[in-house]
Amino acid sequence: MIFKFDEDPGVSTDEFYMKQALKEAQLAFEADEVPVGAIVVCRNRIIARAHNLTERLNDVTAHAEMQAITAAANFLNGKYLDECTLYVTLEPCVMCSGALHWAQIARIVFGAFDPKRGFMRLIPSPLHPKTEFVGGILENECGQLVKDFFKKKR
Amino acid sequence: MIFKFDEDPGVSTDEFYMKQALKEAQLAFEADEVPVGAIVVCRNRIIARAHNLTERLNDVTAHAEMQAITAAANFLNGKYLDECTLYVTLEPCVMCSGALHWAQIARIVFGAFDPKRGFMRLIPSPLHPKTEFVGGILENECGQLVKDFFKKKR
Repeated sequence: MIFKFDEDPGVSTDEFYMKQALKEAQLAFEADEVPVGAIVVCRNRIIARAHNLTERLNDVTAHAEMQAITAAANFLNGKYLDECTLYVTLEPCVMCSGALHWAQIARIVFGAFDPKRGFMRLIPSPLHPKTEFVGGILENECGQLVKDFFKKKR
Repeated sequence: MIFKFDEDPGVSTDEFYMKQALKEAQLAFEADEVPVGAIVVCRNRIIARAHNLTERLNDVTAHAEMQAITAAANFLNGKYLDECTLYVTLEPCVMCSGALHWAQIARIVFGAFDPKRGFMRLIPSPLHPKTEFVGGILENECGQLVKDFFKKKR
């Protein structure tokens, strides 16, 4: 289910947490990684922060979301994140959406849309049936960071 | 592209390597993990071995394939597995197929089919366009181990 921006009473909270995810994305940018950041929030508390580390770790699985899932599960001492929200600056890819399914995450909030690599184009949806999601929170800021990164690379 | 069992001249090689993946799956079974094992082969050499560790690590991302991808990249000192074959006893899930896409794996050989959780039901295919795959190698042995595991659990 997609909440519309103007219908969601929790938007200001979502913007607050997305700014925290953006800080992580900025760290990735500065480290010359594709700038994606993620945090996991459980009962209004940030329990995990991560940014993309695929270059530094030489590991395609080291996306921000994957690390955030692992860190959050470690913090909670349990595999399932069914009381948690993941904030991530870019629409999760196939790998990360599959991981979020296994984690049974309660809610996903993402910034910029990723029509080429994102999970939304997949049929059937790779997410857990109980997972809600919303996209487009601080979309411009989140997307601009990625655009700036690839402009710098060219 | 799916090779048919009786058309593939490399079947005996695939069976040989699948038996190695099955040994890993057996280790998972003995550790009370969903019994899935994987190996990565590069130029006729096994460069990574792994089995499912989601329970021990308390981490939904610790599938056999994910660990095998990370270990193989570490061995090769490079993120891309475009000269490698992954052998895995069960059809990869959405998460693992997404990771295999990012790794640009050359070939995937799997044992048992997984119609509920496997990647083959997804549209569009989550695999890299250059990735070839074949399913059903030692299908019965691979599938029986999973069936025995869930029978034991009931």
